[in-house]
Amino acid sequence: MSIRPQAFESLVKAISQFPTIGPKTAARIALWLLSKPQSVSEEIGKTLIEARAQIRPCSVCYQFTDAEVCEICSDVSRDRSLICAVETSVDVWNFERTKQFKGLYHVLGGALSPIDGIGHDELKIDSLIDRIKKSDPPVAEIILATDPDTEGNATAYYISELLSGFNIKKTRLAHGIPIGGEVAYSDDATLSAALIERKLIG
Amino acid sequence: MSIRPQAFESLVKAISQFPTIGPKTAARIALWLLSKPQSVSEEIGKTLIEARAQIRPCSVCYQFTDAEVCEICSDVSRDRSLICAVETSVDVWNFERTKQFKGLYHVLGGALSPIDGIGHDELKIDSLIDRIKKSDPPVAEIILATDPDTEGNATAYYISELLSGFNIKKTRLAHGIPIGGEVAYSDDATLSAALIERKLIG
Repeated sequence: MSIRPQAFESLVKAISQFPTIGPKTAARIALWLLSKPQSVSEEIGKTLIEARAQIRPCSVCYQFTDAEVCEICSDVSRDRSLICAVETSVDVWNFERTKQFKGLYHVLGGALSPIDGIGHDELKIDSLIDRIKKSDPPVAEIILATDPDTEGNATAYYISELLSGFNIKKTRLAHGIPIGGEVAYSDDATLSAALIERKLIG
Repeated sequence: MSIRPQAFESLVKAISQFPTIGPKTAARIALWLLSKPQSVSEEIGKTLIEARAQIRPCSVCYQFTDAEVCEICSDVSRDRSLICAVETSVDVWNFERTKQFKGLYHVLGGALSPIDGIGHDELKIDSLIDRIKKSDPPVAEIILATDPDTEGNATAYYISELLSGFNIKKTRLAHGIPIGGEVAYSDDATLSAALIERKLIG
């Protein structure tokens, strides 16, 4: 039995649930909360509850949003003939930071992975097909921007197959050496891809 | 402006307040919360608020407790003639883990530190003197178990001076090489203390 008060143990246990937080860090955070006025715990606790309740998938593209339809899907200046299908909301945010993409997104919610029990029905594939069918203007291109790993590749090819009857350009992201990367420290697969996808200069 | 929804930013900002948690880890924790049912956020949020509200300083020894008087102060089997004065509640918990100490504690709430604005009135020194004056049975020994650093030493000597008119044994923790430690890797101060406080064997 621990000598620490039960309420303290509950606090540590609650905080330990967070990923990357072990029991020692959780105890440190709990002590920090005790060193602060009660209003700090109340504010953080309420934010956890309220923010979680406010955030939901966009009813069109399924990225996390606090509106019924997300900012991107509501933005009339975006190119509606271009959809970038990604695995997660974080992917959307990362693409947006580049300011390179002016189309719409579709968050699949992961990649096909029979081992983890993730099949067609676990992903937002049907709604993607539906969106494409009903789109006005028609979708001209879909970028299948799933991760370049086994599951991501399989998912991209699977969706590509489903769209084989549609008059749509289907693309994948380019592979190659990362900007600022070094040939000497690139893995074989990346280097092969960079060779195969090499481009003319000068 | 971030593309991440405002509620997500609030969530990340709330979690980033915790010590040792940077914005990247906070975002990872926020995404983890979104991947779990809302009940998880609710339970953790409520625990933060409720546990913080339940935990308070023991009215006798000032260690963190969820009762009016803590488990140790309420325990009639403990030796009431022996008080161990420490800086924090964590010190109490650490001593209790050793199962070596059967007396009572007094949590000072830190150590004297003029630079940090911590003087006599910021610490629970008056209440310690008061406790000793009123104690029945009388206090026979006080262990001034503050940290062996400048502030901790100063605090121990200060309290020791205040108790100079009392018929009480005043002790400090022994110094020396940690169990499992190595002479080769001990600092000079520790080695000097270990030499001075050497004891007979055999």
